[in-house]
Amino acid sequence: MRLLTYKRDGKQGMALGCGSDWADLGEIDPIDAVTGSAKFHALAQAAKQAPRIDISSVEVLPPIPRPGKIICVGLNYADHTAESPYEQPEYPTLFPRFATSLIPDRAAIIRPRKSHELDFEGELAVVIGKTARHVSPAEALSHVAGYSIFNDASIRDYQFKTPQWTVGKNFDGTGAFGPVLVTADELPEGAAGLAVETRLNGETVQRGNTSDMIYSVADLISIISEAITLEPGDVIATGTPAGIGWARDPKLFMRPGDTVEVEIDQIGLLRNPVADEDAIV
Amino acid sequence: MRLLTYKRDGKQGMALGCGSDWADLGEIDPIDAVTGSAKFHALAQAAKQAPRIDISSVEVLPPIPRPGKIICVGLNYADHTAESPYEQPEYPTLFPRFATSLIPDRAAIIRPRKSHELDFEGELAVVIGKTARHVSPAEALSHVAGYSIFNDASIRDYQFKTPQWTVGKNFDGTGAFGPVLVTADELPEGAAGLAVETRLNGETVQRGNTSDMIYSVADLISIISEAITLEPGDVIATGTPAGIGWARDPKLFMRPGDTVEVEIDQIGLLRNPVADEDAIV
Repeated sequence: MRLLTYKRDGKQGMALGCGSDWADLGEIDPIDAVTGSAKFHALAQAAKQAPRIDISSVEVLPPIPRPGKIICVGLNYADHTAESPYEQPEYPTLFPRFATSLIPDRAAIIRPRKSHELDFEGELAVVIGKTARHVSPAEALSHVAGYSIFNDASIRDYQFKTPQWTVGKNFDGTGAFGPVLVTADELPEGAAGLAVETRLNGETVQRGNTSDMIYSVADLISIISEAITLEPGDVIATGTPAGIGWARDPKLFMRPGDTVEVEIDQIGLLRNPVADEDAIV
Repeated sequence: MRLLTYKRDGKQGMALGCGSDWADLGEIDPIDAVTGSAKFHALAQAAKQAPRIDISSVEVLPPIPRPGKIICVGLNYADHTAESPYEQPEYPTLFPRFATSLIPDRAAIIRPRKSHELDFEGELAVVIGKTARHVSPAEALSHVAGYSIFNDASIRDYQFKTPQWTVGKNFDGTGAFGPVLVTADELPEGAAGLAVETRLNGETVQRGNTSDMIYSVADLISIISEAITLEPGDVIATGTPAGIGWARDPKLFMRPGDTVEVEIDQIGLLRNPVADEDAIV
């Protein structure tokens, strides 16, 4: 099942992909929709009788527009750690996104007033569907609602101003997330073995495979849940492979007018233009 | 005005302090209650006619139980930076709390299964009342709804497992927040000049003053808002002064049966017992 979240008349709704059409599930809270696997069965049933919706007529939102938390994983591909200033830690490197930084597919990633060091990071996103606390790796995947795509666009000079990356990872308009949520049953177990590719103006700049993650989706959920309760709608952005612009010589940053795409096999394509903050009203 | 958030019959409500009594404002969303200064006037008017409430009869919650985001500031007192492994950065060091880690006044701070390195950090918390983006230091304080107290209890070995502190700052049951929100009009401008004291089992372990913050409340709001939209209900935990247990020789960690208190002049007293995770059902 492919679920798209939209806003119409100020209210959030969802649509379910049926071939090239979309069935309108109507007004529905996206976190409620992903809570518990029984919900998906009900949505699939509802879609059979639902009217079609032209998604170009509504405002598309990120699959979960306001997650309770967004936990990003740094240094989760060995080739990316090698291009970074860090050694590989023996534990997942976790940092936050706040929901205020999120944008949907097709919206502009914002190059802020304060910095031009805007970099791309294509990665797999996991959406939690069932509360997880102290779950084993073997149980962990039963807590996943589905998967999506994330571009963890980063303001590099701000990321490294202090020991903590938080601000460089949370500028408004830098967390591209979408276009849709693909339910876990449609993908290989743990979304393993999927090619991840980032393209800047059509040129491939990152190429990886989710099987190369140091901590798999099951590992991440299990390890995080030893400390932190994961709740339905929470998002884990699982880290980016090598190729970031900051590690190149010369450095390659995104500029207004660029188009950045992140594509993950069997999940889809997240495409965003880049715009200057002051060009956006 | 002093506002207390509670839960009764599964619903959130608020009470307004009237001397030693509390006026019951009834079912109200805490984020809605702090949005816009006009709201406070209406609450004060409503309180005049409201029934009293015995707050021992309800479950007290953190002032904002589910903030949109909680931004914590590290290394914001020079004496604390000096006891840390870090140099003083020329920018605020920001890290997250997720709402799943929050507990109210009187609830047990949890020493987790995975670690006994549970440390205290008493600090001033700011609650945002008006959306802030690109606000100057001079305008910044008009975006504050009020202040409260935070104990940013930290699991030190987890904090330092990777370059990012996130996990060590987000174990369930470690973010004590409360007991009440004190509206900004009741305090000195920017909550400056207030003594902050942390006591473990009655013994003073941290003693600071909010005027010693490297980045004042106005500075923090202005600087953060250059990057990130601050929204009503968002919380900034402004950092802790020297005296943390991890920096002592021998190290001093909190243990089950301990009581930890954080007191801030004119705001109040946040008191929490400490319990082992497996002692809590």
